[in-house]
Amino acid sequence: MAEPVPVPADPPQFAVADAVQRALAEDLTPLGDLTSALLPPDQTASAVFVSRADGVLAGRACAVEAFRQIDPSLEIAWSAVDGGRVRPGSEIATVRGRLAPILTAERTALNFLGHLSGIATLTREFVERAHRASGGRTRVWDTRKTTPGLRSLEKAAVRAGGGANHRGNLSDWVLVKDNHVALLGIVEAAARARAMWPGRMVHVECDAVEQVRVALDAGVDAILLDNMAIPEIEKCVALARKAERRPLLEVSGGVTLDTIATFAATGVDLISVGALTNSAPVLDIGLDIVI
Amino acid sequence: MAEPVPVPADPPQFAVADAVQRALAEDLTPLGDLTSALLPPDQTASAVFVSRADGVLAGRACAVEAFRQIDPSLEIAWSAVDGGRVRPGSEIATVRGRLAPILTAERTALNFLGHLSGIATLTREFVERAHRASGGRTRVWDTRKTTPGLRSLEKAAVRAGGGANHRGNLSDWVLVKDNHVALLGIVEAAARARAMWPGRMVHVECDAVEQVRVALDAGVDAILLDNMAIPEIEKCVALARKAERRPLLEVSGGVTLDTIATFAATGVDLISVGALTNSAPVLDIGLDIVI
Amino acid sequence: MAEPVPVPADPPQFAVADAVQRALAEDLTPLGDLTSALLPPDQTASAVFVSRADGVLAGRACAVEAFRQIDPSLEIAWSAVDGGRVRPGSEIATVRGRLAPILTAERTALNFLGHLSGIATLTREFVERAHRASGGRTRVWDTRKTTPGLRSLEKAAVRAGGGANHRGNLSDWVLVKDNHVALLGIVEAAARARAMWPGRMVHVECDAVEQVRVALDAGVDAILLDNMAIPEIEKCVALARKAERRPLLEVSGGVTLDTIATFAATGVDLISVGALTNSAPVLDIGLDIVI
Amino acid sequence: MAEPVPVPADPPQFAVADAVQRALAEDLTPLGDLTSALLPPDQTASAVFVSRADGVLAGRACAVEAFRQIDPSLEIAWSAVDGGRVRPGSEIATVRGRLAPILTAERTALNFLGHLSGIATLTREFVERAHRASGGRTRVWDTRKTTPGLRSLEKAAVRAGGGANHRGNLSDWVLVKDNHVALLGIVEAAARARAMWPGRMVHVECDAVEQVRVALDAGVDAILLDNMAIPEIEKCVALARKAERRPLLEVSGGVTLDTIATFAATGVDLISVGALTNSAPVLDIGLDIVI
Amino acid sequence: MAEPVPVPADPPQFAVADAVQRALAEDLTPLGDLTSALLPPDQTASAVFVSRADGVLAGRACAVEAFRQIDPSLEIAWSAVDGGRVRPGSEIATVRGRLAPILTAERTALNFLGHLSGIATLTREFVERAHRASGGRTRVWDTRKTTPGLRSLEKAAVRAGGGANHRGNLSDWVLVKDNHVALLGIVEAAARARAMWPGRMVHVECDAVEQVRVALDAGVDAILLDNMAIPEIEKCVALARKAERRPLLEVSGGVTLDTIATFAATGVDLISVGALTNSAPVLDIGLDIVI
Amino acid sequence: MAEPVPVPADPPQFAVADAVQRALAEDLTPLGDLTSALLPPDQTASAVFVSRADGVLAGRACAVEAFRQIDPSLEIAWSAVDGGRVRPGSEIATVRGRLAPILTAERTALNFLGHLSGIATLTREFVERAHRASGGRTRVWDTRKTTPGLRSLEKAAVRAGGGANHRGNLSDWVLVKDNHVALLGIVEAAARARAMWPGRMVHVECDAVEQVRVALDAGVDAILLDNMAIPEIEKCVALARKAERRPLLEVSGGVTLDTIATFAATGVDLISVGALTNSAPVLDIGLDIVI
Repeated sequence: MAEPVPVPADPPQFAVADAVQRALAEDLTPLGDLTSALLPPDQTASAVFVSRADGVLAGRACAVEAFRQIDPSLEIAWSAVDGGRVRPGSEIATVRGRLAPILTAERTALNFLGHLSGIATLTREFVERAHRASGGRTRVWDTRKTTPGLRSLEKAAVRAGGGANHRGNLSDWVLVKDNHVALLGIVEAAARARAMWPGRMVHVECDAVEQVRVALDAGVDAILLDNMAIPEIEKCVALARKAERRPLLEVSGGVTLDTIATFAATGVDLISVGALTNSAPVLDIGLDIVI
Repeated sequence: MAEPVPVPADPPQFAVADAVQRALAEDLTPLGDLTSALLPPDQTASAVFVSRADGVLAGRACAVEAFRQIDPSLEIAWSAVDGGRVRPGSEIATVRGRLAPILTAERTALNFLGHLSGIATLTREFVERAHRASGGRTRVWDTRKTTPGLRSLEKAAVRAGGGANHRGNLSDWVLVKDNHVALLGIVEAAARARAMWPGRMVHVECDAVEQVRVALDAGVDAILLDNMAIPEIEKCVALARKAERRPLLEVSGGVTLDTIATFAATGVDLISVGALTNSAPVLDIGLDIVI
Repeated sequence: MAEPVPVPADPPQFAVADAVQRALAEDLTPLGDLTSALLPPDQTASAVFVSRADGVLAGRACAVEAFRQIDPSLEIAWSAVDGGRVRPGSEIATVRGRLAPILTAERTALNFLGHLSGIATLTREFVERAHRASGGRTRVWDTRKTTPGLRSLEKAAVRAGGGANHRGNLSDWVLVKDNHVALLGIVEAAARARAMWPGRMVHVECDAVEQVRVALDAGVDAILLDNMAIPEIEKCVALARKAERRPLLEVSGGVTLDTIATFAATGVDLISVGALTNSAPVLDIGLDIVI
Repeated sequence: MAEPVPVPADPPQFAVADAVQRALAEDLTPLGDLTSALLPPDQTASAVFVSRADGVLAGRACAVEAFRQIDPSLEIAWSAVDGGRVRPGSEIATVRGRLAPILTAERTALNFLGHLSGIATLTREFVERAHRASGGRTRVWDTRKTTPGLRSLEKAAVRAGGGANHRGNLSDWVLVKDNHVALLGIVEAAARARAMWPGRMVHVECDAVEQVRVALDAGVDAILLDNMAIPEIEKCVALARKAERRPLLEVSGGVTLDTIATFAATGVDLISVGALTNSAPVLDIGLDIVI
Repeated sequence: MAEPVPVPADPPQFAVADAVQRALAEDLTPLGDLTSALLPPDQTASAVFVSRADGVLAGRACAVEAFRQIDPSLEIAWSAVDGGRVRPGSEIATVRGRLAPILTAERTALNFLGHLSGIATLTREFVERAHRASGGRTRVWDTRKTTPGLRSLEKAAVRAGGGANHRGNLSDWVLVKDNHVALLGIVEAAARARAMWPGRMVHVECDAVEQVRVALDAGVDAILLDNMAIPEIEKCVALARKAERRPLLEVSGGVTLDTIATFAATGVDLISVGALTNSAPVLDIGLDIVI
Repeated sequence: MAEPVPVPADPPQFAVADAVQRALAEDLTPLGDLTSALLPPDQTASAVFVSRADGVLAGRACAVEAFRQIDPSLEIAWSAVDGGRVRPGSEIATVRGRLAPILTAERTALNFLGHLSGIATLTREFVERAHRASGGRTRVWDTRKTTPGLRSLEKAAVRAGGGANHRGNLSDWVLVKDNHVALLGIVEAAARARAMWPGRMVHVECDAVEQVRVALDAGVDAILLDNMAIPEIEKCVALARKAERRPLLEVSGGVTLDTIATFAATGVDLISVGALTNSAPVLDIGLDIVI
């Protein structure tokens, strides 16, 4: 069984540029960097991004953009790629040029790298455990539980970690949840979804095996097994295998690094983990400056 | 010794409105909420925000704004305040009005509440341990290690947690770090800072007792003791007490929930903790809908 | 066979507010409305939107927003809904209040109403012909050939016209086109799509029956029959009906009001028409003012 | 009688950059181009914009900007200019570089080129007919009936088509319409306009010969003959020729490709046509990719 | 001879809202108003805007908007209008509500009121002197020498002061200056202007009587007499009176409060004064708070 | 006694880019530069910024940005620096490239240079007088009385003039003014400030010697002597010298070029002057074009 191979795809460049511009503005309004203004303006330096911990890198495009917006003449050479592993002491990149703008952009660059690499690192942990427990069958994907304003960047970091992306947003596909079911029933909700949004995936949340039977009969494209116990999940997997048209089975609820293997062993297709994007601690990365 | 009493101050309203607008845009571009469009448009409901865990609330203004931007006719009644404690099952607020917009705004409101309450909750933990260990003397404050684009909101959440705010940004005051010291020396850096930015706090990072002596002689306003061992910190505290003009003493580096009491017991004034804003897990809050 | 019943869903409010704000800014920079400034400031009036032609209404939210941004005290009463038919002379809405702001907002409101109603009107024409020719089976949907900056609003106007929405944008689902096929082949492209973007529809463009066979074998979710002749399309429909898992069949290319019935009669599921959004003439709507 | 020679002037660059940025954002939020992510990242290609129809080109600056914003390393070589004629098969430009970003920007570039060239093409038709019928005297100009958000770009496309630009917006000059006349009368309205906005053109809408006499006596700078019959227009032309100070005479209302020659033959100076910008079908342009 | 009566027209509301939003953001990023946070949150007050000097009021809409954006529940009652005179001690407006937001918005509101009233006040001085010296014939207007980002607001303040607005911007009309004349000559420049921008005023800068003769022969709409001596200006006025079509005559250069009467006495139509918008000192207005 | 040596620090680049973009947009919406469009597009020129008066230069970054945004191929060579003196006739910079974009950007570049150099020039006057009268002890700094939207740029211009920057904004430090004192008293206000915002300067406004005694006892960091007479100021200086911890003493109110020497001679540390940023007349700078 091979290791999972992430195929990261960069976030859209305008999302990177915009997020960096906002981060710099909040760090520099109104007077700019008071302390860097004390330095001799022509002093140059090189600065090396070094990992202080084990992890997976993400956010290169944001770090590049932070230095570019502060001083386009700074030069950056990378020795690691998004999705690549770093160890304590791993050199990630070297920035060369005037010292003052390097220090001005340092914290913004580190905030992006640390936050996004933290997401990639936690994702990789979940992905590897699910991969091993399922023989490579079960994928891990994210949720819409992202940090406000950073959805594009965080979902790219999940990809760098080897995870997949669930719905990008409410406009992506139809996800019929408990409240929709309560009002419309699964059959009617699925029928409306197909009528109103043809060609879109119809994804239904079920919290009981009986609902899954209904959803299978309704021919939905994906079923989210929400907060079900392992034996129920196994029943649902078995039911789905017998179905004429096998939908994707997704599990959510109560998934932690400790429990994911158990969920993955049931043979579901996908496990969604909100913690990837809303609870990943920062990856500790520092900037060592050589003057 | 009294408990610390947070005096939370709301973030500026334009920062709230702007962050919410961006979060909704990333969740709804380009087609809006496909699933809510299936619902009967006149269906009303009430929806109760309920905590699923112990914690400290923050982010009310963001939740209000999320519902307001989607449908100004929704009504929200709060039963908890920013800075207040919540328990599993605590009702936080009730939203009443049309169901479809409630569901459209739900995730955005929860993302803000969960993220910011997570910060307030972790902050409160650190604050209480420092308070107890120091007899109320030692305060906890944040850093510039915030999530890009959310600086204003996260620093307000730290205040809701009972923490204080370190520099808001690079424009706030002068913080002379190791690289500035290497180039200029503490005495020269402090002199330049006073000449160029009169009236601003001059804050110097020191990593050895000898540097602290120099900084005290230079009459700086605050000294950051970076990654020092406890005995050295104690020496610095003693030195500072003897100084003609006693500066603030701040500790940073290696501060965790396990170690903070030890640091606080040294009698320093402030302890900075980057984890408050870059590694706080989300506070689990849900929205229960009654149709 | 029943008439098709459009279930229009409004575009997101922030998209409406933003588009209107930009339209007003380009009409009023830098000095505002020179001519309205000549009027007595307290003069009031009522103004009636009247259709000058047969058509389908769309864009109400934009017209409301235009008046609201110029003068929130103006009152609007509607006698028609998005998706509803209008005839020459049909009254659509009445605005009451101060005359000067009514005249200032008039052209912006009309530009939105006319453009979006033009799209809804043309869509309805295509939809009805496809509906009749296919016994209600074949749907019409739009494309990404929208006017830059108005995607959300135009796709909502298509829904008001009874059409469906194809991909909202490049982030929605995977559409493997001729160039991707040339590089990767259908089988490999579909495999990569499933691996990289699990749960997303895999949609493949084919321009020959032989390609359709490959796509059916690959189990893709939807097939776009691009610029095929009617007999070939019929072959593809027959093949798809025999397939184990019947994908959606979409036709594009050469579809006009004259030819759509012929395409719809083949029994395909969907017909995409770029002209809905990039070539619809304006619906002639006027504003009659009573002072 | 020479052909009319358009002297196109580019729209302001910030208007181009802004419109393109918005178009790309709506096409790529939140996850970017899912399908291009399947391609080998280093695959290069050349891509040729080819006209599929007869027309007049406009929008080059927007196409350039779309590729530049997605990948500044792409190279574009043009073989046609804004305002130049294209035929079916005419090569317009060639883009060279990485294939993935070319495909990501393709639709946005085409949407601008097609929309703006459609406007230039329709404008040229009207312009040539007016030119021929009037011996080169009568000009065609646009209106404020533009697509919201694209005013600058569409008015530049009209110039590329050989048309002129009427008022850019409400801030440009004073246009006294029927409602202003009803309230103030022509004489008073003109007096107020000159008092309040000295140096600005005073332009008055008239729908009867008698009103034109009043306007001529009032010495206005331009008269808009709105929805008048040909014989009345001819009377107005004759009256204006006898006036001490001959104002510009403009015709609007009921002007189509079929009728414009008749209007132009009356000898008026200008004919305004809303359809130039609100009803021009797209010019069919494609992108042929050579890998 | 009557006093000149200003007919102020408000700037567009979006320009007001946008300028205020930016001003508040620069005053409150990132932490908000530190000092107001010390106040009891429920403390209310009333606050009276009082003039400390003689002047003319402008900028009411901006002050209203500043308070509205900070706290929509604040109530403002005005006792003066834009364009109205104020004296030392004149009460201008009263704000009532919570004290903390009043103090937070105070400086922003005062900055707008003071700056814009300063412009209106200086304008009124120039206007009255020109009015008296010319028997009411000569008007004063502004230039494009405005403070970057405040063009709309400053030009409205000029109107409040009784001045008129010259070109709003480069898009308004054609102003042929010395460099254009050097390259094209007046005749050719005017011909090109009429061909390219029909209906627009053609305004030509002349610095010698001989040029004015050429411009008169070319039938231009307005002539700017730049830095001419009084006798030359008088010659130009005489020439223009004899011209078949009398253009507007404008004087610029060397116009101060001391010299304007002399220029106005020549009988020119308009005098442009850059100082109105780029050198007006603030009007001293204070806010007296009653708790 | 040496001359004061300004150490100007540039404003943040995003603040420059944003202010310039807005200034260009307001000057070019919607049609661009009508007059420059008449010129031969390939005509080149060189253009020299020349001072027409004595002054101090500021705003170079804005002028560079204005030309860059209009045409990145223009080349600028500077012969003066921000903070440097200019005389009538001093050449400041030379721009070379296409004439049309030079003329389009000219006024925007001049508006920034003139406004910001006007501030630097007036600041230098105040600074030199205070410097001489105090033997170099007393500094001049600005206030929050800045032009809305230009705070960053104007505060940088004050630095170029040799002045210092007071609070950047309300988020910078605590300034307890008369209304806060009225409600809380100095002692309580200072205590709250230290509790809520540890590490921030506590600055208190006093208008009587008695208040200064209280403030000194409270150990505040800075005292603003507001509108005090010279003898009272002298008493406060004497009191402060005797204080255990000498706070900064600032004077404000009634400070003009005529009176500043008297204030400075009292030995206070800082004098704040609102006129630096809200009443500085423009520095007259022109652009001489050589074709």
